[in-house]
Amino acid sequence: MEADHLHQRLGALNAEYARCIDSNRLEEWPDFFLDRCFYKITTTENDKLGYEAGIVYADSRGMLKDRILALRNANIYERQTYRHIVGQSAIVSRSEDEAVTETPFVVIRVMRDGRMDVFATGYYRDRVRENETGALRFAERVAICDSSRFQTLVAIPF
Amino acid sequence: MEADHLHQRLGALNAEYARCIDSNRLEEWPDFFLDRCFYKITTTENDKLGYEAGIVYADSRGMLKDRILALRNANIYERQTYRHIVGQSAIVSRSEDEAVTETPFVVIRVMRDGRMDVFATGYYRDRVRENETGALRFAERVAICDSSRFQTLVAIPF
Amino acid sequence: MEADHLHQRLGALNAEYARCIDSNRLEEWPDFFLDRCFYKITTTENDKLGYEAGIVYADSRGMLKDRILALRNANIYERQTYRHIVGQSAIVSRSEDEAVTETPFVVIRVMRDGRMDVFATGYYRDRVRENETGALRFAERVAICDSSRFQTLVAIPF
Repeated sequence: MEADHLHQRLGALNAEYARCIDSNRLEEWPDFFLDRCFYKITTTENDKLGYEAGIVYADSRGMLKDRILALRNANIYERQTYRHIVGQSAIVSRSEDEAVTETPFVVIRVMRDGRMDVFATGYYRDRVRENETGALRFAERVAICDSSRFQTLVAIPF
Repeated sequence: MEADHLHQRLGALNAEYARCIDSNRLEEWPDFFLDRCFYKITTTENDKLGYEAGIVYADSRGMLKDRILALRNANIYERQTYRHIVGQSAIVSRSEDEAVTETPFVVIRVMRDGRMDVFATGYYRDRVRENETGALRFAERVAICDSSRFQTLVAIPF
Repeated sequence: MEADHLHQRLGALNAEYARCIDSNRLEEWPDFFLDRCFYKITTTENDKLGYEAGIVYADSRGMLKDRILALRNANIYERQTYRHIVGQSAIVSRSEDEAVTETPFVVIRVMRDGRMDVFATGYYRDRVRENETGALRFAERVAICDSSRFQTLVAIPF
């Protein structure tokens, strides 16, 4: 993967990704992934211990779509919104057709009554590749949360 | 508007904008706008409902200057400072002389006694253009806050 | 220092710096500085008053290494982790071999029991230069915190 403009392209990808979630266009969220992909939400602690299970887990874009469908049907999170702030990406390694990157995030939760709190912090550990049209997509995205205290049900994508 | 380096230029513009406010150089704040411009602070809820009124509203750079003058005279916010963290911009659309962009923000309020809290989150929906010297400026900046609970008086620019 | 790609290079530098600290690879932290360097943590208030003393102070890379050694021996901060979110850099000035930049930050503290709070906000005022291999390094980094309420002991690097 070309080094030229890679930081800029990663910045644009992550900006679009966060905007998709925060503006509640969740049906478009799976489009940030390749057909064959891997997605997981986990915690630093579990990641260090090598636990493979995640709070949320998917190994194809189809599963990501199913997740959104289930979420819309359950209709469980109408009472809050979220705001992702995503930092700049560090490029951990790079091969001909792939880059491994890490990108920090903070998610603020906004309750319906207006209260705001820090909902989650952590980083994404990603493998990004170009799709058939040359656009950058996630072959793998693992959202690793700093805190291990979690809502039993993390509904939104991270 | 040229795609080349646009993300980088938007990043620089937003970094300078936030730094101007957070370092309390408010008199320079109107310089980020074109003479003929539009500025508004509103909430997601009001924005969705199509309400045109905003918490703060200005339709020329002159009005922005007046606002700062009033603010300095009122001298009402000496007891706290703010820190903006602005994410990377998504380019929503682009024409020959203009780009429409969205940029997320979080504002932390720092009280005089040292306490800090999340004061606001949201995103800017902007129309940016080049001024006569080729510098990027706001033809329009709408700051859309996620929470609809607001201090009756939002004094600082967002 | 070449203007070309400088924003992008600063973004990469700051992303790597934050990632080094947040992933607890503190032994690598001094490598972000030149041999002859200056590092300080201070507050906006003290900075404005012209106080030269800082909460933490070092004037060589050797002192930075000593600090990490001391910190590891004291082993005092096992109970929380931190997450830095660093905004984009404003380039304040630029000469042939140096750039002066300012970069805002927010640090979230994550307690062992999962609670999260805003630990610090502020900005870095930096002088960056290239080292002998052409990589961007800090000749000076002053971390200026907005709040003057501080843990008596700020253990981690900022």
